[in-house]
Amino acid sequence: MATARRDVDVADLVSRARDGSARAVARLISLVENDSPALREVAAALAPHGGNAQIVGLTGSPGVGKSTSTSAYVTALRSAGKRVGVLAVDPSSPFSGGALLGDRVRMQDHATDDGVFIRSMASRGQLGGLSAAVPQALRVLDAAGCDVVLVETVGVGQAEVEIASLADTTLLVLAPGFGDGIQAAKAGIIEIADIFVVNKADRDGADQVVRDLRYMQSLGGRHSAAGAWRPPIVKTVAARAEGVDDVVAAVEKHRGWLAEHGEQERRRTARAAAEIEAIALGTVRRRLGNVHGSSDLDAAAAQVVSGETDPYTAAEHLVAAL
Amino acid sequence: MATARRDVDVADLVSRARDGSARAVARLISLVENDSPALREVAAALAPHGGNAQIVGLTGSPGVGKSTSTSAYVTALRSAGKRVGVLAVDPSSPFSGGALLGDRVRMQDHATDDGVFIRSMASRGQLGGLSAAVPQALRVLDAAGCDVVLVETVGVGQAEVEIASLADTTLLVLAPGFGDGIQAAKAGIIEIADIFVVNKADRDGADQVVRDLRYMQSLGGRHSAAGAWRPPIVKTVAARAEGVDDVVAAVEKHRGWLAEHGEQERRRTARAAAEIEAIALGTVRRRLGNVHGSSDLDAAAAQVVSGETDPYTAAEHLVAAL
Repeated sequence: MATARRDVDVADLVSRARDGSARAVARLISLVENDSPALREVAAALAPHGGNAQIVGLTGSPGVGKSTSTSAYVTALRSAGKRVGVLAVDPSSPFSGGALLGDRVRMQDHATDDGVFIRSMASRGQLGGLSAAVPQALRVLDAAGCDVVLVETVGVGQAEVEIASLADTTLLVLAPGFGDGIQAAKAGIIEIADIFVVNKADRDGADQVVRDLRYMQSLGGRHSAAGAWRPPIVKTVAARAEGVDDVVAAVEKHRGWLAEHGEQERRRTARAAAEIEAIALGTVRRRLGNVHGSSDLDAAAAQVVSGETDPYTAAEHLVAAL
Repeated sequence: MATARRDVDVADLVSRARDGSARAVARLISLVENDSPALREVAAALAPHGGNAQIVGLTGSPGVGKSTSTSAYVTALRSAGKRVGVLAVDPSSPFSGGALLGDRVRMQDHATDDGVFIRSMASRGQLGGLSAAVPQALRVLDAAGCDVVLVETVGVGQAEVEIASLADTTLLVLAPGFGDGIQAAKAGIIEIADIFVVNKADRDGADQVVRDLRYMQSLGGRHSAAGAWRPPIVKTVAARAEGVDDVVAAVEKHRGWLAEHGEQERRRTARAAAEIEAIALGTVRRRLGNVHGSSDLDAAAAQVVSGETDPYTAAEHLVAAL
């Protein structure tokens, strides 16, 4: 086994990733995840090779069957001849530094399929949000020729919204007995879902979940305008692969709608703008630390605590000295 | 009723807030919440008058009885002659712009008590986190002479952690039947709680929750070092005010520990540093938009989407032109 070298041949890695090397894909994701010195080089090398993959976000409360659903979609997409990437993001643990994978066992069905790339990431975003590595990892999978990249996350409010902001198409998975209707409405998730999946549809209460969703849709919102996408509600029993083809068809239909309405371009441009801004702010953040030394920030903080100054005045001084 | 004036006499408002005017407190919080032009003036006027209040964060899953607990603590603190502020923060809805208050009815017990200030805020943080207004609102309540400010939030992962980062003392409220032990461990909340409250302790399963917590504590972590604070576990039935005095005593004991170990100063300085940094980054963020015009950022984003450049290079150009 080769140990990590200082000098990484990024161009070679990208070339091998594009040829379908799972090892090269894994290595590139590790590079972006660890914010390595090669990160910028990786981003530059990936730039010309992106924009093909449809990014499909998949979210929902714990227990609704997200992992089972993801695995079933992978199977269906593979049957259709698509190359598939899976990125499992766990934003619930700011401390562990490692993704809690829950039921990843089913994904092992795909472990030996070289048309599927599977990767899990923890969220380690410094500003409390999703790690900046997530969009970069998506670029790696995109450049590696994935037709569809499934981004799966556990349902913990804000993170779901952030995943949706990274995706071309967002699936919200629900199931009977989770009180999901109300929870989803509360978290604003209803507003960001492009497709509703009612999983475990063989259980009591599934039809009630569908009715609840229809009712909430009838209340209007962003989908009520003419020509707008009206999120379909698809019933599945993912564990038996029932309804899974309907989900895949709905995802494909949404891709068509996005392209037809210029929405794909709009979403991707907004995403790139947010990404650029986040990187720029990260640079400034590091510079604030480097230029002044953390002792200057600490001194300003001590003055705020003692009441000598207020945080706005202190911040102004720091920025002025940039 | 006076309508909103352009020119606000901030010094007068702060003076009246310090004299105990609930109207002045409410007005000041509105000013900081709405990011009004007077915000900086408010911050400067508040600076010399802070540092007295103990900020107590209170978090937990929906249904464990947070509002009932908060109300019961207010009653107990008032009996002890303390002035109390309550800030209810709902970070679960990035879209509504209005706080979902849930069961605020009980708080009406305190509505006519001029030793209690109650305010609810939605989270509208632009970077996905808590609104920058939250620490400012805490400063208002602190300057208004509150001895204790209770900050209540619903349990949605990241937000709980953020609330904890604002508080001197963090209470995690649990209850039997919510599977909270595992949930809390997963969200990293166990690691940030200073006091565990097992509410609804008259119900089956309360002792099991206590045992689960003890077991998790026995696994070590930051509390295992000598002299470290070992979070007590307090059982309550908040609806009947049972155990509430024990919670108040634990909060008081924690205040003493913080002071004794220099931890109060350390936490407040770290908090001020984070706040200054966030304000500085906000300034830079606005400047990125203003200097270049959003069209420049949009143009850079379009280049990233088309593969002409990568987001790091685009960000570098934007920062260089600052």
